[in-house]
Amino acid sequence: MAFADDPSAGTLNMGLNSIWVLVAAVLVILMQGGFILLESGSTRMKNAGHIAGKTIFTLGLCTLVYWAVGYAFAFGADNAENSISKFIGWGSYLFAPAVSAAEGEALPSTIFFVFQLAFAAVSLSIAWGGFAERAKLSAYLVFTVLFTALIYPVIAHWIWSPTGWLFAEGAQDYAGSTVVHLTGALAAFAATVLLKPRIGRFNKDGSANEILGHNQVFGALSVLILWVGWFGFNAGSALGVGDGFFGYVAFNTQLGAAGGAVAALLISWLVNGKADIPTTLNGALAGLVAITASCAFVDPWAAVVIGLLAGVLVFFSAKFFEKIKVDDPIYALSVHGAAGVWGTLANGIFATDELATKLNVGKGGIIDTGNWHQMWVQLESVLVCGGYVLVVSFVLLGIMKVVMGLRVTEEQEIIGLDLSEHGTFGYPEQMKKAQQSL
Amino acid sequence: MAFADDPSAGTLNMGLNSIWVLVAAVLVILMQGGFILLESGSTRMKNAGHIAGKTIFTLGLCTLVYWAVGYAFAFGADNAENSISKFIGWGSYLFAPAVSAAEGEALPSTIFFVFQLAFAAVSLSIAWGGFAERAKLSAYLVFTVLFTALIYPVIAHWIWSPTGWLFAEGAQDYAGSTVVHLTGALAAFAATVLLKPRIGRFNKDGSANEILGHNQVFGALSVLILWVGWFGFNAGSALGVGDGFFGYVAFNTQLGAAGGAVAALLISWLVNGKADIPTTLNGALAGLVAITASCAFVDPWAAVVIGLLAGVLVFFSAKFFEKIKVDDPIYALSVHGAAGVWGTLANGIFATDELATKLNVGKGGIIDTGNWHQMWVQLESVLVCGGYVLVVSFVLLGIMKVVMGLRVTEEQEIIGLDLSEHGTFGYPEQMKKAQQSL
Amino acid sequence: MAFADDPSAGTLNMGLNSIWVLVAAVLVILMQGGFILLESGSTRMKNAGHIAGKTIFTLGLCTLVYWAVGYAFAFGADNAENSISKFIGWGSYLFAPAVSAAEGEALPSTIFFVFQLAFAAVSLSIAWGGFAERAKLSAYLVFTVLFTALIYPVIAHWIWSPTGWLFAEGAQDYAGSTVVHLTGALAAFAATVLLKPRIGRFNKDGSANEILGHNQVFGALSVLILWVGWFGFNAGSALGVGDGFFGYVAFNTQLGAAGGAVAALLISWLVNGKADIPTTLNGALAGLVAITASCAFVDPWAAVVIGLLAGVLVFFSAKFFEKIKVDDPIYALSVHGAAGVWGTLANGIFATDELATKLNVGKGGIIDTGNWHQMWVQLESVLVCGGYVLVVSFVLLGIMKVVMGLRVTEEQEIIGLDLSEHGTFGYPEQMKKAQQSL
Repeated sequence: MAFADDPSAGTLNMGLNSIWVLVAAVLVILMQGGFILLESGSTRMKNAGHIAGKTIFTLGLCTLVYWAVGYAFAFGADNAENSISKFIGWGSYLFAPAVSAAEGEALPSTIFFVFQLAFAAVSLSIAWGGFAERAKLSAYLVFTVLFTALIYPVIAHWIWSPTGWLFAEGAQDYAGSTVVHLTGALAAFAATVLLKPRIGRFNKDGSANEILGHNQVFGALSVLILWVGWFGFNAGSALGVGDGFFGYVAFNTQLGAAGGAVAALLISWLVNGKADIPTTLNGALAGLVAITASCAFVDPWAAVVIGLLAGVLVFFSAKFFEKIKVDDPIYALSVHGAAGVWGTLANGIFATDELATKLNVGKGGIIDTGNWHQMWVQLESVLVCGGYVLVVSFVLLGIMKVVMGLRVTEEQEIIGLDLSEHGTFGYPEQMKKAQQSL
Repeated sequence: MAFADDPSAGTLNMGLNSIWVLVAAVLVILMQGGFILLESGSTRMKNAGHIAGKTIFTLGLCTLVYWAVGYAFAFGADNAENSISKFIGWGSYLFAPAVSAAEGEALPSTIFFVFQLAFAAVSLSIAWGGFAERAKLSAYLVFTVLFTALIYPVIAHWIWSPTGWLFAEGAQDYAGSTVVHLTGALAAFAATVLLKPRIGRFNKDGSANEILGHNQVFGALSVLILWVGWFGFNAGSALGVGDGFFGYVAFNTQLGAAGGAVAALLISWLVNGKADIPTTLNGALAGLVAITASCAFVDPWAAVVIGLLAGVLVFFSAKFFEKIKVDDPIYALSVHGAAGVWGTLANGIFATDELATKLNVGKGGIIDTGNWHQMWVQLESVLVCGGYVLVVSFVLLGIMKVVMGLRVTEEQEIIGLDLSEHGTFGYPEQMKKAQQSL
Repeated sequence: MAFADDPSAGTLNMGLNSIWVLVAAVLVILMQGGFILLESGSTRMKNAGHIAGKTIFTLGLCTLVYWAVGYAFAFGADNAENSISKFIGWGSYLFAPAVSAAEGEALPSTIFFVFQLAFAAVSLSIAWGGFAERAKLSAYLVFTVLFTALIYPVIAHWIWSPTGWLFAEGAQDYAGSTVVHLTGALAAFAATVLLKPRIGRFNKDGSANEILGHNQVFGALSVLILWVGWFGFNAGSALGVGDGFFGYVAFNTQLGAAGGAVAALLISWLVNGKADIPTTLNGALAGLVAITASCAFVDPWAAVVIGLLAGVLVFFSAKFFEKIKVDDPIYALSVHGAAGVWGTLANGIFATDELATKLNVGKGGIIDTGNWHQMWVQLESVLVCGGYVLVVSFVLLGIMKVVMGLRVTEEQEIIGLDLSEHGTFGYPEQMKKAQQSL
């Protein structure tokens, strides 16, 4: 217990920010629990232990790599005077922060680090959507290092670092529809294309077979955990308490999520005649992904609209990817990719000048200002960031494919990655019974 | 990051309240994860995906309806000068709050909204206990709208709005044993009566068959998540930090929960010869439900007693409802109904004058004051609120039953709602095996 | 809502501490959800309901006992003037704290109580590792009382009470590698030795059979939940916000966990040829356990090293306990015992004088100071605390074994504790199918 008897208003203010941002960071780390359930619930029993367990490993490895170099590339400020700082940060390798906040500092750098690290780990977990049920464990290991060092921090730097070039242009991506979600989704896209679809996913005549996830209770719980974590994700991005604005961000987040869940259920009911559960769950997530960029820039009614449209979008997007024979087991391309693009562009439409001015990031969108300026900024940021992630992911994964191979053998895939990569089933009692009945 | 360098004590105080109440709101939203596990774990595998997944949808729809009209009816203050404001609120439709706290405001209205919305959603999830394993998806959709617009906000207004008539009478329901729990439970009661018992629950001779829930691990985890969420539920109802009183509320909450869990296990052991797990789990929840009204009004020893008696009550209540052939799959009537009544009345017995005075709500109970006044107020509030909920629920669900039907067909119920309402099993691999062995 | 319009800096500071420590306490209570999943996932389906459900009961009973006497023995200060207060506390039975913080108080005692109680409950849940799959329900009941009254509070008093004798010697155990983890692990050790191994765990020739846990998804989720809860565990142990130092504790905690997860996966891959999932999960936990004592005393690079070595240690420790035929179903001895010792001793190596001075607890370790003083203090505290827990646990469990018996019958163990102790399976549908196929 180290507090002065009579702390100053500045110290108390730092204390407020510290609590909120650390709580938010913890909520974002909790989202990994959502991914454990989402990924394992959306895939088959023979891969469940592998898929759930690898998240603990990759969270750990991502932490070490981000600590060693990722944070330096994203937020290192040693090169701030140099114009290269527009494109990448420098310094703070093996990050060794001050143990306490300095006089006048609004937030201890320790807490800022944990918060930013948690975002990197979410983006990485989204990328795993493209690896599911067929990538080798070693591919997870190597790509964790590459993604955390060379892909994610670059995008984070461009949009969120005070020296980043898209930050300077006024790109509005409050909590990372592009930085976190689109980045993860495009890495997943590169992976799923290079890995090719799972055995049995598409027939020779081009028609698709549904490979059902084994546990929708895990699915629903995962969405709820992610929803809860998103309050840290979005409202934590205020990086402090100030005048209470972070509450507005939380409020809009709830509206966006709600819109997504409702619209997705209704559209699947309307189109398919039945409201399927995975679509509903994806809808809630798509609403959350879309409102991530815009939660701080738009009016509540717009948050609802953004969520509703995200819910519709995710339904048709999933159909589209199936049609073009891209195997996307966890729906990463639709939930985080399509909705991530939509959420980023939505600021170009719905951002209000009042909020853009308040946050001092960009300008109002088409509806409020009649001006397309912000829309072009948003579009540019999607295209440039998306392009970087796509190219670098294809190159790095392509090299990995040649050098070490990405995919397990056909036989290993059929018996499942729990056995082939780890030596035991994740559900040993249930799988033994299943094998007996084969 | 938008903070002045030297915020005033008032702004810092608002910041404290903001953090705590938003964290509390997030904890209450997390309770939906508890309900996902509780409801699905307490029912059969063939309905698990439906039961888990519908919670994400109804949480979303409840959010939109509460935003559009529910909050207006509960806390809208446009009619505060009018005597009708005793019975219902007005204004704040499609709620569009200020983005920041106003000068001198103790809590941003955005955060107050999210907190109150989370309570409405809990009450709704309790009501689903009466729908489980036989209600049509469309019934969930329509009743979400009706409950969130016409049932819950009215009770919340009466007891918690500064203009509400039971508030004026000094009704003590700190965090909603009546407002949230009894309301949800009585809606569940109306539903289960109108839906009739599940196929196979009762024999023609009137004897009962137990329909076991399929997953007690989900059950135990659900209770733990709800327990955790309850710290937000109860201690968040302080709506701020002030002199640290919210810690006392948390302390009493823990004691009440503990009493319930211990007493329920022991009574089932004593009476049945075996301590059954569902009773223990229900006991912890009943302790939490009971202490919800009284956590801020009673001494610690009384919190223990209230919890212990709730644990005993829930055991006999469940036996009673089975005896009168009411099918209550999730034990909503016992856990939230019986314990909700007990918790509300407990204030009439155990409330201390000191705490009633501190909170400026009602007076001390029988033990502290020797006076029955508060007991009659508590009894009145249970009867009047219970009566309103029961009548309106029966009417609305009765109309729904006639107009659209509430229940799936017998065939659909037998194959399970996962298939009949959504087209796939929630556990496709396990159910396929189950079907093969039929 | 009870706040003055213009609270003093002291009151605001108390408010900050209140929020953070209550949030931390809630996170630590959430860890019980981690234990529910960890214990049930690491054991067999026939015991799952029992193992999951008993946690709710023992959490409740632990609460009542700690409230009645445990807190008094740990932190009661009525005997502070008496030299016996070096060894045990006195006073505050049936704890009835002030409802608000007193003038000048840094933290309401209500919140301090809930935080400390949550630690006692974690230690107890660790002890259950030694009881799994064969202890009678009544043994859980009686040992909860004994452990919470007579074992845990004594160690907590020695190291954490301002009057405790190891506190006076400068023992460095920031959040309880010894107090919580080693204590729980050694109680588990006594239990598993007295209970003897599970049927089928070891063959007559001394060779071991692996009894696989039934659900690795539960395992991975449990680790994630525990990881999240550990931010409350460690950073909450700052007991306040002050100059933001609690953020540094959180930062080191993340690094330690990461090191453990990465090292354990790699060492099992290297040694066994396959990276097994349970080892990876244990590695993350071992990293967390080890960093628990040292998170506030060491540099970030040392946190990584402590975590990495904990990950290696837990792998070989588990092999060792299997070799000496100790049946440790949940790996409590390796994860909480071996890593708990390592984490405590690590301060003797890595603690910096700067941080020891800042916290005013002990001195720097060998590397920073070249002095072995702190190492001997740490070693003494491990030996003395470990000795007390081991002796008292063996005596109390030994008496229980004679008086009431600890273990179910062979027949009960074979059919499983769900049926034998509670009358129904925890997974009734799945187990029925399993029985049919026997």
